[in-house]
Order: sequence, then C-alpha cells, then structure tokens
Amino acid sequence: MRKAYNNASKIFKVLILAAMLRVSGAYAQSSIPAYLDDSKPVKERVEDALKRMTLQEKIAMIHAQSKFSSPGVKHLGIPENWTTDGPHGIRPEVLWDEWSQAGWTNDSCMAFPALTCLAATWNKDMAMLYGKSLGEEARYRNKNILLGPGINIYRSPLNGRNFEYMGEDPFLSSKMVVPYIKGVQQNGVAACVKHFALNNSEGNRNTVNVNVDDRTLYEIYLPAFKAAVEEGGAWAIMGSYNLYKGQHCCHNEYLLNNILKKEWGFEGVVISDWGGVHDTRQAIFNGLDMEFGSWTNGLSQGKSNAYDSYYLADPYIKLINSGEVGTKELDDKVRRILRLSFLTTMNKNRPFGSFATKEHALAARTIAEEGIVLLKNQGSVLPINLNRTKRIAVIGENAIKMMTVGGGSSSLKAEYEISPLDGIRKRVGTQAEVVYARGYVGDTTGNYNGVNTGQNLADKRSASELMTEAINVAKKADVVIYIGGLNKSDHQDAEGADRESLNLPYNQDQLIAQLAKANKNLVVVNISGNAVAMPWVNQVPAIMQGWFLGSEAGNALAAVLVGDVNPSGKLTFTFPVKLTDNGAHALNAFPGTKDEVTYKEGIYVGYRWADKHNIKPLFAFGHGLSYTTFQYGKVTADKKAMSSSDKITFSVNVKNTGLRDGEDVVQLYISDLKSSLPRPIKELKGFEKVFLKAGEQKTVTFTIDKAALSFFEPTKHEWVAEPGNFEALIGASSAAIKTKTAFTLN
Amino acid sequence: MRKAYNNASKIFKVLILAAMLRVSGAYAQSSIPAYLDDSKPVKERVEDALKRMTLQEKIAMIHAQSKFSSPGVKHLGIPENWTTDGPHGIRPEVLWDEWSQAGWTNDSCMAFPALTCLAATWNKDMAMLYGKSLGEEARYRNKNILLGPGINIYRSPLNGRNFEYMGEDPFLSSKMVVPYIKGVQQNGVAACVKHFALNNSEGNRNTVNVNVDDRTLYEIYLPAFKAAVEEGGAWAIMGSYNLYKGQHCCHNEYLLNNILKKEWGFEGVVISDWGGVHDTRQAIFNGLDMEFGSWTNGLSQGKSNAYDSYYLADPYIKLINSGEVGTKELDDKVRRILRLSFLTTMNKNRPFGSFATKEHALAARTIAEEGIVLLKNQGSVLPINLNRTKRIAVIGENAIKMMTVGGGSSSLKAEYEISPLDGIRKRVGTQAEVVYARGYVGDTTGNYNGVNTGQNLADKRSASELMTEAINVAKKADVVIYIGGLNKSDHQDAEGADRESLNLPYNQDQLIAQLAKANKNLVVVNISGNAVAMPWVNQVPAIMQGWFLGSEAGNALAAVLVGDVNPSGKLTFTFPVKLTDNGAHALNAFPGTKDEVTYKEGIYVGYRWADKHNIKPLFAFGHGLSYTTFQYGKVTADKKAMSSSDKITFSVNVKNTGLRDGEDVVQLYISDLKSSLPRPIKELKGFEKVFLKAGEQKTVTFTIDKAALSFFEPTKHEWVAEPGNFEALIGASSAAIKTKTAFTLN
Repeated sequence: MRKAYNNASKIFKVLILAAMLRVSGAYAQSSIPAYLDDSKPVKERVEDALKRMTLQEKIAMIHAQSKFSSPGVKHLGIPENWTTDGPHGIRPEVLWDEWSQAGWTNDSCMAFPALTCLAATWNKDMAMLYGKSLGEEARYRNKNILLGPGINIYRSPLNGRNFEYMGEDPFLSSKMVVPYIKGVQQNGVAACVKHFALNNSEGNRNTVNVNVDDRTLYEIYLPAFKAAVEEGGAWAIMGSYNLYKGQHCCHNEYLLNNILKKEWGFEGVVISDWGGVHDTRQAIFNGLDMEFGSWTNGLSQGKSNAYDSYYLADPYIKLINSGEVGTKELDDKVRRILRLSFLTTMNKNRPFGSFATKEHALAARTIAEEGIVLLKNQGSVLPINLNRTKRIAVIGENAIKMMTVGGGSSSLKAEYEISPLDGIRKRVGTQAEVVYARGYVGDTTGNYNGVNTGQNLADKRSASELMTEAINVAKKADVVIYIGGLNKSDHQDAEGADRESLNLPYNQDQLIAQLAKANKNLVVVNISGNAVAMPWVNQVPAIMQGWFLGSEAGNALAAVLVGDVNPSGKLTFTFPVKLTDNGAHALNAFPGTKDEVTYKEGIYVGYRWADKHNIKPLFAFGHGLSYTTFQYGKVTADKKAMSSSDKITFSVNVKNTGLRDGEDVVQLYISDLKSSLPRPIKELKGFEKVFLKAGEQKTVTFTIDKAALSFFEPTKHEWVAEPGNFEALIGASSAAIKTKTAFTLN
Repeated sequence: MRKAYNNASKIFKVLILAAMLRVSGAYAQSSIPAYLDDSKPVKERVEDALKRMTLQEKIAMIHAQSKFSSPGVKHLGIPENWTTDGPHGIRPEVLWDEWSQAGWTNDSCMAFPALTCLAATWNKDMAMLYGKSLGEEARYRNKNILLGPGINIYRSPLNGRNFEYMGEDPFLSSKMVVPYIKGVQQNGVAACVKHFALNNSEGNRNTVNVNVDDRTLYEIYLPAFKAAVEEGGAWAIMGSYNLYKGQHCCHNEYLLNNILKKEWGFEGVVISDWGGVHDTRQAIFNGLDMEFGSWTNGLSQGKSNAYDSYYLADPYIKLINSGEVGTKELDDKVRRILRLSFLTTMNKNRPFGSFATKEHALAARTIAEEGIVLLKNQGSVLPINLNRTKRIAVIGENAIKMMTVGGGSSSLKAEYEISPLDGIRKRVGTQAEVVYARGYVGDTTGNYNGVNTGQNLADKRSASELMTEAINVAKKADVVIYIGGLNKSDHQDAEGADRESLNLPYNQDQLIAQLAKANKNLVVVNISGNAVAMPWVNQVPAIMQGWFLGSEAGNALAAVLVGDVNPSGKLTFTFPVKLTDNGAHALNAFPGTKDEVTYKEGIYVGYRWADKHNIKPLFAFGHGLSYTTFQYGKVTADKKAMSSSDKITFSVNVKNTGLRDGEDVVQLYISDLKSSLPRPIKELKGFEKVFLKAGEQKTVTFTIDKAALSFFEPTKHEWVAEPGNFEALIGASSAAIKTKTAFTLN
C-alpha cells in the first residue's frame, strides 16, 4: 500500500508539473481538451464535456441552486448559469434563497418600455435596439440567461400580464420577437422566450388546463414561438404554468417534445417557469431541461441544501440508481445546457456589455416615443402649442406614480424614472405654468403578492375632495392633461391576478367625464398594457395610449404631447367598446374555471373576431394617428396569379399630405375569399414603417409567398394554401383599409 | 427647440442603426474602440479608456462600493473589480455591506495549507502549484483580485498572523512568492501581495509607527516584496495598517511612491488594507490607488451610499472641484486599475478556472505532505509500523478541531476538512484500534473578533478529568499521537491579536509531560503557524510540526505518520528555546507601545540573531528530518575567485544513505568573512530540494553572482558587494553545516 501510494504520488507530481508547464507557457494546441477548443464545433465540444461529467454533476446542472442560478461544472471550469428577470430591464440582485432584494448598490438598471410599447412601434429596428441594449445590461451584470421576451397572445383585455407581451396578432409578434432575440443574444446572453404556451390568464394559472383546437394552437398561439426558435434562434424557452392536454406545460409531451423539439428542431434549453414543475417522471421524459423555483423560500436556511429535493434532483437520481429510468434523457438535457454555456459564458468573443448608460437611456426614450399611440385627436388640442398656452393642468395619479416597480417579475429597481409630471415640467420649463392635481387615489400599498414596491402614495383627502380640486384646477387651465389608467397593482396589470373589469379603476371614468365638462381642451393619457373601456370617449377630444414606458416615461410623453416627436405608434390589440365585444368574453370563455378553460372563440382572436362579427371596436388593431396626414395610392400587384412555389409583390404609394414630417405603418392584410375551412376575413401578413417628410411620397412594397396564404389543416396536421382567389388589403389599421387588389393562387 | 430635438433624434437613429449593424455583423477591425482591441498594447488601451471616462467614473473606480468590490465603468463595459480573501482559499460570499456570510451554497472552497506550510516545502514547484490552483478557484468564483499572498517577515513568534506568511528569511520568501504569484496570475487573477510593509505584529497594528533603519528595511523586510514585484510581476499590492515614518503605510510616501513605484517601477495597483486609509490628501498623493473597507458595516442601509464618504470619494471630488488638487494623481490611479482590468477580467484568453476539485484536493494534500516537518525522531517511533501496532491512542483537541475556520480574514468555508483524527482512522482502517481522548479543552467559543467560526467544541468535563482520561488511554496504547498546539482562536494564531506567550495554551505542557511518562512511544504533533516552547522536548521521542494544513490536513498527517510519505519539510523560522532567544524579545523590542516600535535587533532576525549570539535554538531554521538519512560530500567551487561581474558555481554530492526514498533540501549559506559594516554570520542564498532513491546520489549545484554577496549600504543607499574573502556553506539546516569552501571576490 505504501509503495502504491508513493508511486501514485510520484506520477501525480509528474502530471502536475506537466500541467503547470502547459499553463505557464503557451497552450500547445494539442493539449487543450476539445471542450475548451474554440476552433472545434460546439457539438464536438459538448460531447467532450459531457463525457467528463459525473452523474452528480449532470443532475446538479439541471436544477437551481438558488433563486436564479444553477451550477456549472466546477472541475471543468464551466461557469454557473445566472438567469435574470426580465423582459424590460435587469432585475436587482436578490438574496440566495429569498425573494428579498440583496441590498446591492450596483444593480440599478435602465428600465425599458414594456413590450406592449415596443410592439406598438411596429418597427423591427426598435426591437433590435431594445434586445441589444437589454442584452448589454444583462451581460454587464454577468447574467447569461435573460428571462424574456414574453410573447403570449393577447386573448382577453383582462389578462394581468398582457403588458409584458406583444399583442393579439401572431404575425406581428413573430416579426417583432426575432430581432429582439438576436439583439439580446449577440451579447452572449441567451434569450429565454416565455411562456410556452397558452398562458393567457393569470388567475388559476397553475391549475387551469387549456382546451384549444389544433388549428387555433398552430395559427394563433404558436407562430411567435416558432419564429423565436426558427428565425430568432432562441437559446432557451420557458415553459408556462398552465396545463395543456392534462400536463403542465413545463413538462408537456405535446408542446415540448413533439412540437418544440421535433417539429421545430429546437436545440436550446427548456427552462421551467419558477415553480412550474410538478412531477419527476414528466419532467424527465416530457422535454424539460432545467428546473427553477420549485419551492424553498428561506427554507434552505439550516438545511444542507433544500434544492436537492427538486423534482430533477434527488428524486431523479433515485430513479436512475434504481434502474427505473436510464440516463439518455439526462444526457440530452445536459447537452442542451452545455451548448448554451458555450454560446454564452464560454464564448470568449462576446462583448462585455454596459449598464444604465446614456445610450440605453436614449434607446429607451426613442422606443417609448415611437410606441406611444395617438388614439384620438379632434380639433387641434394636440400637439400642445406652448407659444399659445399659459397654464397646463396635469391631473391624475399616474402622472406621479413609479411604473417601473410593481407588476410582478418584471418589477425593476431603475437607476431613475422620469414621471410624466416631471417630464412635462422639464419640457415646458418657463414657457407655461404647470399645475398638478392628483384627482384620485389608487392602490397606495403598491403591493404585489405581498411584496411592497416601495412607493408610498398615501393621501388622506377624500375622493370627493380630490375630484373637486382637480376640476377647479382644470377649469383654470388652457389645456388639461389627464394621466391615469392602470398602475401595476394587483388586478391592475400585474402578474398573478387578472383584471376584474374592462373599466378604469378608482372612479376615473367619472373624474374624466367631469374634467371634460370643466375644460374642452382635455387630453387623456391612458397608462396601461391593456385595453380599457372609455365611456367618455366622445366627450374627450384627444386620447393617447401611454403604456408602461420605463425610465424615460415622462420625457417621452412630454415630447409627443408638445410635438417634439410626431406620434407613430399603432395598437397591437383591439380596444373593444365593451368586454363582450371580445370573443373570449362573448362566449363566456374567460377565464374558465380553476381547472379548465376552453378557447371557444378558436382562431377568432382580436380583430379576427371583430371582423367576423362586424363589431366596430373602440379603437382598432393597427390604429394610431399622427400629427400629419397620409394618403394611400392604389395598390398594384406584379402579377394576377401566382403558383404555390411563386412569390407575389404588392406596391402602394404613400404620401405625407400634411405639414409635418412623420411616420406611418403601412399594413398588408390577406383575405382568402373562399376556403375549405372557415377563415378570418383578413389576416396581417406584412407591415412597413415608413418615414415621410412633409409632402414626400414613397412606394412601399410587400412580397409574400404561399405561407402568407396558408392556414393550418388540423386533419392533415400541416399548413395548406388552397388555390383560389385572394385579396391583398392595404390599410392604416385593420379597420381602415385604404386600397385592395385581387390575385389568384393557382 | 423642436427642430433641434427632431434633428438630434434622427441623427441618433442613424447612429443606433450603424451600431446595430456593427454588432450584428462581424466587428470591422477599424470600428472597435482602441480600449477593446486586444491587438493593441495595454498602455494604448488604458489611455483610450481613460479619455472616455468622466471625473465621477474615475472617482468611483478608486474606492469600494461594497465590502469586497469596486465599480468598473458601466458605459464602457469595463467590469467591476471583485476582490477576495485570501491567501489559503477563496472566502465565502458576504452580504453587500456586512461581514456576515451571504448564505450562498456554491462557495465552499478547497482549503489549502497555510503559507507557513507552503514555505516549509522549500519547493518552488509547490508554490507554483499552490498559486495556480488557488488562482483557478478565484477565477471560477469570478474574483479578479486575490488578497494574497502574505509575505511579512517572521520577526517574533508571538505575531498572531505569522501563520499566513513565509517565515523569517527574505531569500526563501522571495523565491517562494514568485511562482505563487505567477501561478495565480496565469488565471487572469491579480495577486495582491500583502502587507506592504513592516506589519510584524497584530496588537496596535493600526496605530503603531515602526522605526527601522534603512539597512534592515532593505535587507530583511523588503526583498520578498521586491521579488514579488520585479520577478513575480504582481499586479497589485496591499498597504499595511501600521505607520512608518509617521505615515500610515496605505498612503506612505516613502514606501509607496519612492520605493515601490519609483525604485522598483511597480505598474500595478496599491490597494489599502480594509480600513487602512486615514487621510484624503495622503491617500491622493502618497501612492494609494484603491481604498477599501474604510468603514460602513450595515451603515449604508438606509443611506444612499455610505461609500461616498470614503477618503477617496466625495472628499477627493471636493478638493478637485475647489481647485485645491489636480487630477494628475487620479489619472495615475485609474490607469493602474484599468491596466489590472485589461490583464484580468478583460483578458479574453484567460482560462475559466475550476473550484473545489479533486485536482485541487490532491494539490492541497501534496503541499501539506511536503510541508510537514519532522522535528525529532528518536528511536523508531516514526513512522508507525501498522504491522506491529495494535492500539493507537490519539490525544488532543486539535485532532478534532476545524482549522480552516478562524484566524481572521483567511478563515474559510471549506468544501470539507479531514481532521487529524479522521485522517488517521481512515488510513489505519482495521489494521489497528484507534482510541481518542481529548485531553484538554481550548477556546470553545471559536470566536475571532466576535465572529463565531461555527464549531462548537464545548465539553463539560473538568481539566483534571480530561487529563486523567487521556493518561489512561495513553497507557494502554502501543503508540500515542498527541495532536495539540495553537488553534486560531484569539491570541492563538489569529489576525488582530498577538500571542501572549511562547508556551502552549490550555495547560498542554503539563499534559504532554504526563503523557510522556505514561507511554514512551509518544509522538507530539504541534499544529501551529508559530514556534512554541517545548519544555518537554527531551521527554518526547518524536515531534512533528503540523501547521494549519487545510482540507486535506488529516490525510496528509496520517500519510506522514505511517510513512506513506517520507517527510521533507524544513522549518522556515527558528524555534527558540525561550522567548528571549529571539532578538526582538531579547531587546524588549516587541511589540513596542501603542504608538511606537523600534526594530532594535535590526538585521539580526531569526537565525541571524542565533548565529550572532551563538544561541542554540530548540530547532533551527532549515531543520527537518527524514525517515531516511543523507550524506553530504565536500563542496567544491568552479573557481577560487570571482569578479563583480562574474558568477561562481558550487557543487556538492548528496547521497541517500538510508533504506527509503526521500527528499532533502540542500541549503547554501554565504558568509562574508570581513566587511565594512557588521554582517550576519551567514545568510541563505540558495536551496534545492532533491529527491533521492534509497542509495542514490546526485550532485547539486548552486550558481550565484555578486547579489548573493551584497549588503545594503544605507549611506550610499545601494547594494554593495565588497571585495574580500567569503565562504560558501552547505547545510541541511542553518545549524547543520555539512561542508564549506572559501572563495574571493576581487
């Protein structure tokens, strides 16, 4: 034994010295293990690393070690994975095993506008800028998995989390999500697209089984995810909380194995939503790769490691050790995670990122300015002409409320946030007097799931006192800017709970009606990520959709209000007059019960429902005004008929007929005049944001192929373009078709 | 104004799009800013980054933002700097602004042997292995500045922090520190060599002004730092707490500006010890580059940022803004920090590190085994022959006490620690019975500066009961292994407080004497980082110096005790019989008063004092036995005389005359027979660890030049080698000169 040890010891010393020489001098090419060799293909590196790992190391890698991190491989130098919320900015550091903030002072981020606002820019360059900027922030904070973007389809205006998503249309979401992902990932940070899939309400999100027909699934709820995977090349995707076909979506054979991984060839990592895993065997076999947030909230204190109890931790090892399950699935999960590591933390050429910079502030502001939607502008209330305005009344709690905190997992600790009132005051300066009245008191606790968001907005005055004050202030002003809406409190656009009504909360409808009586120059700025009812719409000359705009909120709003920026945002979802104008609500199919919801409206989501039932919306999908006007010429096609392997190009002339430079979004909808299965009247299949100087005109072209003509044939389980007659419709919104042309698919 | 903004907005959009294209595609070479261009020299990159920084950013970079981190440059993507204790392993994460551990579960490190043990290997390859392994651990944990190694000279055996250092000899420390630094830094992690300088006692460390003559400073206390800078290329150095010439050493004109930066050309970063800064102007002008730990302990809670009050924060800005000081010094500090960033976090080719691996365990064990020193071995007590041993008694609290915790800033949260008892039990297995008795109770609070180290060793039995039990156990055993010594409690080898006596604490001397009477086969293993008195030395046949050995402590001790490993460690400091055999104590010059200490012994530190006064030490510097024996031939020189530009080579044959393979450290001392200033009898100027199989012999050679013959001439302020007669002495220790030869410097 002694000799054996001595020999081993000597051999070891030789090995150590060899290793030292290798590291001291230049690495000889041949001596680098394959997994560290950048020149080798990722697949080869993955296999090489995999074969060097123990069972324990593999199991460790597929589940969390803390609230947001998971282990790497210590002996191989493969770094840990650090995820971060979220889609709108980089979440502050939390304690190891608690949701409480860790009290760091280096993590105050730039808050970007919510994704509803980004989508409303209808500008893919802005999506790229957004993703690039956010990815830089994640990279600087050493996070390699960004938990976003969210691209669930806007099915009902009551869904508490719609503000994080990109609207009701699968085509628009698909086009906007791809550059966002590319922008994030060029920083060596994985985008984790969420929530896959059918997570369209917050109430009962952990228990509800979603019943949806295959055609609706493929035509409405999957396309943005498919684009994220196939075109965006997303390195990760997050399973959703709800069930589908009786299985939770974080371990769902149909969605993850069959569709995501087989049909779409996804090579990335499927990450559970936090607490979305419920079963070890399903987690093993049904496509999940990494488990996060299953439980523990300070529970590991005093225990050696509560994370060992995760479904994919000790229970998995036991099944392997007992021989009940093999390691094929484990190896597949680990391969995917290793691939992500090689693309992120181990990519030596990734940039270093940047954080809360002026460039990011400018990006956030530009996106906010482009996303703000001018819904109505009667007379000449907007833009506010400061040369003819002596006193501006700003009214409404949202003029002073921080909107970067609250709302759930997207809540941020922003480096700063310019409130609307601050932004207006800064922009107006001494040109006019700005007087503020709060008008109403919302939820002053600022609570989300029991977590206080830090802003104390308590006001002891009665609702009637506040209203009286506001009316008096309004009466004495030249123009009144009302800034209200929702506010990210529970049930008011927040994760975890849906809205309870389409109406504005806190008696705002009455207040707005009174303000409209008090002053004819009333501008209502609605801050929300959802449509709201506007019973006072005809009494108010100007209405603006303001979204949750991030750090630069007030600057962006002020710039649009006074006309520094000519608004060019367009709605990404339909504003119904009343809740039952929405398909899910008309059919009493939202939110369903605790256990089941059936998407009875099927493919008729958003404008598809309004079109089908000829319902005039309050404001239509694609709608958004400008301070200038645009005139559309007649659309022409480059051919009358196309084959299924062919393309067809439509051209339309658009002219700025007003006195200001401006941008419009030219929208192409396709209408299938006759089909074997019922189809929507029209579907968005192209859009182009075009900048036109005053008086300028440009020709906008759209080229499509049969994909734009296809629908999902559920019995064949494939996309089908049926020969026959189609129409190409060019509109300034889904309700404002300006010109159309017919063509045939042979 | 509107037009201006619109124009700016459009220009910005163009710039953004250009930037996006740049990042999306491959970086065009010309479009990379110089500071990000790897192909450019570091100096050019530093200048480019510097010119892009604001005053605020520069100020932020030169002081802490949390207990252990400082800001990078967010807008340039220059990462934050994260320092970590310490020299023996990577400290666990602490809360942002408190010393308490953060409760992470991914930070349990490999604990390496204390630096006293590393130095005792007298093996430069082990120093390289140590630095490389520790650097890998720091790198994996994303720390880019390692707060180590410590190389203060062992002046008195009472200094509480000697266990972190490399002994009493400047030459040995110099040779061992260089490969340690290179090993750390090849991982892209800066070594921060500490504590510069003259921090040779813990008591009064923040207030004491050290009076030392120039010659002593240059000959004894600076050489290891000089080697660390000039040969090791250290990227950072830490100022010490004490004062010199009336200035605290963290902002000391003489040490930092004149010697370190001017004489030695140090280009790295001077980092304050935590709380070592006391004056803004001195910190600005006297060579400090980064300020850490000045105060705040939870104080920033509720404040915006307590770190803004640092000496090099707001007070510095005020002086600049008022015009009282310029920015030249600031730019110099920032340049140095930027350089460090480019060499560490921004070096894309640095490896990824590894953490708490088997390789590191083997490294820790090998170093521990090589560093253990066999002080005495009378008869055939060691190695323990398990074939002839039925019952082994292990006695002493240090057999079961965790030694990786406690002691101060080098305290660790180790992945594991094999106690001596565990190690012995594991190695002995069923070959013999192992019986344990505690024998005494030490400091069971495990407190260091009020921080509990986590191990509860309470025992309610009386000292007399414990001793009686131990004696009884000893009587019935074939061999007794006593494992005691110091234990990193306050005053027992710990930062912040010196030892109060050379004697062992907790009445161990009496216990050992009793055990020696009870059993003639007694082995005493002394665990400490300091010399201890051994009044029982003649009663005990075998004595081993065990150090603080880290995670593999028990395995390493067991391997040496049973002879799996043939001991080869040598003392790096003198064990005096009594305290007054040490120069500082003989002259009553330790620790001085609260305010002043004078190094009255001058250059006569350690064996230099013993030689001068002909004092026989308990165990001499360089001493260490083996289980085999070595015989030295006669040393020869390749010439009789050398010139000052010449070299001379000495050769000596060494033979293993025993029956076991083994290693010996052949030591070269130089004696200047006559000189204008008094010189030590001899000084170490070469050493070589040589492995010899049983019966094998090798010739060991040493080549020196005039540097080995020189002393520091304080009036000339330069090193002088005076012509005349010298002797080269070859020894197995400073007290065991085996052969010598005379030569002349012409």
